[in-house]
Amino acid sequence: MIAQNMTIFFWGVCLLTSGWATYSEASVPENLDKSIDELKAYYIKDDHEIHNAHPVFLRVLKDLKVNLEEPEQNLLMSIIMDTYSRIFTRMENDSLDEATKERIAHVQEHLKKLRENYFPGKSAELKTYAETLWAIKEDDPVIQRKALFELKRVYREATLLKNLKNKERRRRQAKNTKNLKS
Amino acid sequence: MIAQNMTIFFWGVCLLTSGWATYSEASVPENLDKSIDELKAYYIKDDHEIHNAHPVFLRVLKDLKVNLEEPEQNLLMSIIMDTYSRIFTRMENDSLDEATKERIAHVQEHLKKLRENYFPGKSAELKTYAETLWAIKEDDPVIQRKALFELKRVYREATLLKNLKNKERRRRQAKNTKNLKS
Repeated sequence: MIAQNMTIFFWGVCLLTSGWATYSEASVPENLDKSIDELKAYYIKDDHEIHNAHPVFLRVLKDLKVNLEEPEQNLLMSIIMDTYSRIFTRMENDSLDEATKERIAHVQEHLKKLRENYFPGKSAELKTYAETLWAIKEDDPVIQRKALFELKRVYREATLLKNLKNKERRRRQAKNTKNLKS
Repeated sequence: MIAQNMTIFFWGVCLLTSGWATYSEASVPENLDKSIDELKAYYIKDDHEIHNAHPVFLRVLKDLKVNLEEPEQNLLMSIIMDTYSRIFTRMENDSLDEATKERIAHVQEHLKKLRENYFPGKSAELKTYAETLWAIKEDDPVIQRKALFELKRVYREATLLKNLKNKERRRRQAKNTKNLKS
């Protein structure tokens, strides 16, 4: 009976340490941690707005892990990083305090490194394309006629892209099955 | 020499037909083709505006194929489809001609099917998250403070996600190497 408890205890410790190892690998570097605390002390005067139930990024992050696949997680993470960069660039430009400007620049550097390592995607370009499309006026007669004029090509391209995607997926599945058999 | 030419000719035909096969798989269904032609005849009275050098969607499509990865292509394609839906819904509402309304509705049906097949739920979810993040006002002081307040958690989650990804990649590589050896 004691031997059994010892084994459970042993595996429990392993699980905890491996879990803690993964989580500790994900900790915030010390100097970045300091800069963030100093910026929080400077900007957040214990106001209630921070603690209302509407987080900005944490809600998206929570869903990201549950709902999306890796490529989409990466894309969304790069959009989150871009959004942080937009916010901090504005804060840096607006600040009149030299020390605060330096701390924000320091935080931006870390985020930039994380983004380059982790999400080399094209989310900034994607945003430009998306905004161009959203700005399209659906009641503009010239736009309406152009949209009609281009429709067949767009339809073909969309179907072509889909077919290529399906072909690639079948190729990958065939490769995996072959690997399993060998 | 003749045998060699025959082989080149043979492979040329294969390439062409497979290319044509992929492209023909991407052709516009006959009935849709007809509706589009009828709508073009109705709306486009051979006016020069259509042929000026500013296409609406084709420019984005061209870049999409060259610049973006698959998840980004999917997201942008779903935004293109949304934009078409916006334009055609407006045209359908504004039209006083019953036959034209029916043709537009018919085209909308095809686009809807393409959209559902091509961009299963995930792209739609991804688009909602992306639009939420892109709509964030970087000059809003409450947003700025919340962004700061959430930063450590976001940084940890991003690094955690990266570490898990790298671990999975190392596990897959080890597995593949093991498969090759066996």
